[in-house]
Amino acid sequence: MKELGFFDGEFIDLNEKKISLEDRGYQFGDGIYEATKVYNGKCFALDRHLDRCIRSLRELKIPVTYTNAELKAIHEDIIKKSGITDGCIYFQITRTTAPRTHYFPDKIVPHFSMTIREGAVHTDWQKSGVHAIFTEDIRWLRCDIKTINLLGNVLAKQEAHEKNCQEAIQVRKGSNLVTEGSSSNFFVVKDDIVWTHPISNLILKGVTRSILFEECAKKLGITMIEKAFSPDFALTAHEAFITSTSLEVTPVIAIDNKHIGNGLPGKITLKLLKAYHELVKKECY
Amino acid sequence: MKELGFFDGEFIDLNEKKISLEDRGYQFGDGIYEATKVYNGKCFALDRHLDRCIRSLRELKIPVTYTNAELKAIHEDIIKKSGITDGCIYFQITRTTAPRTHYFPDKIVPHFSMTIREGAVHTDWQKSGVHAIFTEDIRWLRCDIKTINLLGNVLAKQEAHEKNCQEAIQVRKGSNLVTEGSSSNFFVVKDDIVWTHPISNLILKGVTRSILFEECAKKLGITMIEKAFSPDFALTAHEAFITSTSLEVTPVIAIDNKHIGNGLPGKITLKLLKAYHELVKKECY
Repeated sequence: MKELGFFDGEFIDLNEKKISLEDRGYQFGDGIYEATKVYNGKCFALDRHLDRCIRSLRELKIPVTYTNAELKAIHEDIIKKSGITDGCIYFQITRTTAPRTHYFPDKIVPHFSMTIREGAVHTDWQKSGVHAIFTEDIRWLRCDIKTINLLGNVLAKQEAHEKNCQEAIQVRKGSNLVTEGSSSNFFVVKDDIVWTHPISNLILKGVTRSILFEECAKKLGITMIEKAFSPDFALTAHEAFITSTSLEVTPVIAIDNKHIGNGLPGKITLKLLKAYHELVKKECY
Repeated sequence: MKELGFFDGEFIDLNEKKISLEDRGYQFGDGIYEATKVYNGKCFALDRHLDRCIRSLRELKIPVTYTNAELKAIHEDIIKKSGITDGCIYFQITRTTAPRTHYFPDKIVPHFSMTIREGAVHTDWQKSGVHAIFTEDIRWLRCDIKTINLLGNVLAKQEAHEKNCQEAIQVRKGSNLVTEGSSSNFFVVKDDIVWTHPISNLILKGVTRSILFEECAKKLGITMIEKAFSPDFALTAHEAFITSTSLEVTPVIAIDNKHIGNGLPGKITLKLLKAYHELVKKECY
């Protein structure tokens, strides 16, 4: 079992250098990415990730040069080649390599790069819950596209990290509304209803978020609504949690050192997590 | 004379691949850049660029591992080695290469990459003036840092390009105030007074902008003020222009197909351009 890379059709060692100084991914962050969780040697919810990848490419007018079937095959191949059964596959597509100019170069073929690394889910966080902070959401206004322009997210996560917290929950200044985590969607539970920010240009349509809405909550008969709320509302909620491919469903037990509810992982949160695990089991085991 | 690259201490052919898949510049746009104009084999206003580079690094908490003297020496070396006398030197510094995680890795040494390419200033644009469009400023709220997270700028410039215009002038939606161009600062002249957006988190403190304020306008006795204005105000101005290292001072004669003033490059604009050229001459010839 070993971590492995892939670049434009070729498997590579992760230390190999394959990127040009003038790759637009390197000079402009001009590209998109996806990250998929591998359980038991299989990618979970890969179709959803690939559909979102195609959407991101279209929004940035990056030519789509792979079919979903090809992308699936690359995912299967890298799992096989690496021998990794539990880990994460990350891939990104950048517009191309070209002499630096802001507007798009003509007649281009995008670059595709991928990595696979071992790594299990933080089940400890799922059991204990995590601490978070609120921070100003300073990101651009197309957070719905999963691009590699991630400095706003990076700085937010770093702020949380320096405060010994696991996530930064972002708040837009003008509206005073919570959007999402720096690498997750954010939810609160109040009076048995789950709230989260509506799909818009301000948040990413997370795959795990979609699965909760369309599958887990439905199955459990839990009411989920898409409605934005303030940090104060969140602090008076009974439960809070974050979702992402790597975090699955992880309880948030305190924000800015203030307990959410009784300061323990919430009942509805854990029900959703359990339902999510059942889906993973069904698809990957 | 030939275009040339430089990466972490070594001169390279521009086609050589030196960047890892897991360079944080490639995966997060986690880095900063500067671009300097070479006239007659010398970099113009290099000290100002290097000072800004250091500021950008500090704002992103990327360790500063080069002195200004070293950076100057690299600029001189690449000019010599390439034989290029008129062109552009671009460099970027990314945080490091590390397994992907949003927060900063510990104990890192940043990567330094540089390119030099031939290229003269668009003197035709300076003579004729250029056309621009207004577009919504959707960028993040730290535009004062010269980072490689440039997708907002890229999309704005592309929009202008598709409309046969040379620049996109960005307008913040809530305030309806003009900020700057997609790769330039923006100015209007009304009743002999030059207006531009104040230094804030919403614009880059352009080197050419600073030179106009501190040297050209002073010398010419032209009044320049830092005061934000609306697109409507800009359309009723007598003159408009953009500044950047590569554009120097370039008249804007129309925005959204509406003439600015009489639709010709303005008198004050051209005076500022002339004073700028005199400074270049003094420093580089």
